[in-house]
Amino acid sequence: MAKDNSSPQAGIVVVSEADCQRLVGRKEAFDAVEAVFGAMARNDAYNFPVIREAIGHADALYGFKSGFDRAGLVLGLKSGGYWPGNMDKGLTNHQSTVFLFDPDTGQLKALVGGNYLTAIRTAASSSVSIAHLARKDARVLGMIGAGHQAQFQLRAAAEQRNFERVVAWNPHPDMLPKLAAVAEEIGLPFDAVSAEDVGAQADVIITITSAFEPLLMADWIKPGTHIACMGTDTKGKQEVDAALLARATVFTDELAQSVSIGEAQHAVSAGLISDADITPIGAVINGDHAGRNSEDEITLFDGTGVGLQDLAVADVAARAAASDGAPMVSL
Amino acid sequence: MAKDNSSPQAGIVVVSEADCQRLVGRKEAFDAVEAVFGAMARNDAYNFPVIREAIGHADALYGFKSGFDRAGLVLGLKSGGYWPGNMDKGLTNHQSTVFLFDPDTGQLKALVGGNYLTAIRTAASSSVSIAHLARKDARVLGMIGAGHQAQFQLRAAAEQRNFERVVAWNPHPDMLPKLAAVAEEIGLPFDAVSAEDVGAQADVIITITSAFEPLLMADWIKPGTHIACMGTDTKGKQEVDAALLARATVFTDELAQSVSIGEAQHAVSAGLISDADITPIGAVINGDHAGRNSEDEITLFDGTGVGLQDLAVADVAARAAASDGAPMVSL
Repeated sequence: MAKDNSSPQAGIVVVSEADCQRLVGRKEAFDAVEAVFGAMARNDAYNFPVIREAIGHADALYGFKSGFDRAGLVLGLKSGGYWPGNMDKGLTNHQSTVFLFDPDTGQLKALVGGNYLTAIRTAASSSVSIAHLARKDARVLGMIGAGHQAQFQLRAAAEQRNFERVVAWNPHPDMLPKLAAVAEEIGLPFDAVSAEDVGAQADVIITITSAFEPLLMADWIKPGTHIACMGTDTKGKQEVDAALLARATVFTDELAQSVSIGEAQHAVSAGLISDADITPIGAVINGDHAGRNSEDEITLFDGTGVGLQDLAVADVAARAAASDGAPMVSL
Repeated sequence: MAKDNSSPQAGIVVVSEADCQRLVGRKEAFDAVEAVFGAMARNDAYNFPVIREAIGHADALYGFKSGFDRAGLVLGLKSGGYWPGNMDKGLTNHQSTVFLFDPDTGQLKALVGGNYLTAIRTAASSSVSIAHLARKDARVLGMIGAGHQAQFQLRAAAEQRNFERVVAWNPHPDMLPKLAAVAEEIGLPFDAVSAEDVGAQADVIITITSAFEPLLMADWIKPGTHIACMGTDTKGKQEVDAALLARATVFTDELAQSVSIGEAQHAVSAGLISDADITPIGAVINGDHAGRNSEDEITLFDGTGVGLQDLAVADVAARAAASDGAPMVSL
């Protein structure tokens, strides 16, 4: 057998979930996600087509998000999906693993647990939108959704403005106490209110649900509000009234996903807005778009979740782990 | 930080290139590829869409082939691509890594070097076609192509019939002595001849080149010949005269790839044959198609290369490695 076929790999760093939690905090995730959104808007980074398959086994949805950041030289993919029976086995239903490759040679260079990173990069995404689009004097943070991911969202958002209070609504009210405990931990008073009152009271609203119908109506929202819609990542899902996108100035992580599987899909297909009405947030980050134009403007960020976010935070984890003596394997 | 997000993984077996070479021989590869072709034809296994991107760095082509075999419970992907500058760095230009996931939970369960496996699964594919479609009394094996992969093809094909001789042609004649050395090693006389004479003399022909124009014309081929076209895996590539596909009974690994990126793309787009003229080889393996009907029939196998082949041989490697004390890591 020809030996030269084997091409022994340089070392592959193995970064566990626990190491990711230790090495990648909210600040690191924010910086990485902000940088890659900027690179996307400069066409220095792009996401490859997403693969997503219902595999016909264990009711699982499985697939990959992948891309290449030429500026950061980060190449790879996040693989995984949703296994609804996992919780009964003591495992997270969402399972993710990130693989990073050396863009100069194609060799695998890092194997990174992706469950915690997925949560922190999604929270970083709405945080980046708040940092760039919310009013500086925002004081009330509204949450629509109170699941596991909502806790990450709340912690990250709370650092972006001098919030004084959290108001929250969830389709299942029994989830709210866990979110209230997080608010308490970070020193913010928490009120469970109606969805309509979230709209009436909040200056910044994050929606983070798995809804398939609008939970927040356009005329419930105050002028000047910033809304980050983080839950819609599939055709058919919807968190807010399509009319709200027509009323708001709309931003997104990736236009192609926003209009097809993101929150904007409904407003676009109803003809209320078009692609041209949606601005990549990277353009704001890069200074090529002003972002918010007035204190009364409603801004809406459609956070669809792109592979480059996963790769960006995984790269932070892999670099930190490599200089921290993480285990290495080779092929 | 919520600890339950981490979902520690069960052990991940790490299978090096050297272990793959040791653990997966031609027989194991043949059996695995034959089984998965059969599963594909029964709709028990399917390939997901292929991602293939020119990344705009290092002239590299990067992507994934992936799929799920419900019968074998094998889920995963092969990631990698082609880095033309690697050879100057002492590395193989084609770089592949296979990742296998537990279809019951979505957790990563194996990390497998994919370079050797890619070569052996491609050779297994033409071998399976020879086993099922070539005349039993085939005596002369013809090779069009003499590169690294041709050596694997020759070794595997030689085991399928009682061949007495090899005739070969390559666009670059200086490559032929290496192939001749392989033929000598396995005890077969070897003659370098013209491409036309390969057609005139061979009972079984394997084409394994990167050609973008036909190297073998339809009227050079004897009645009763079996041809395995293994080199065409991209739009625009072509190894044989489109008229040969009209003259032959055509089989393939996967119809969708055959007509779009495989050898059949040219005959189909020229209107010489249609999808209905192409039979998945799995139907022959499963006994649902007779295969060769007469001693004079020309059979042609369009081997496009599917992700499920990679997963099938990687699964063999991972199972053998796991019971052989291979290194394990966990996330």
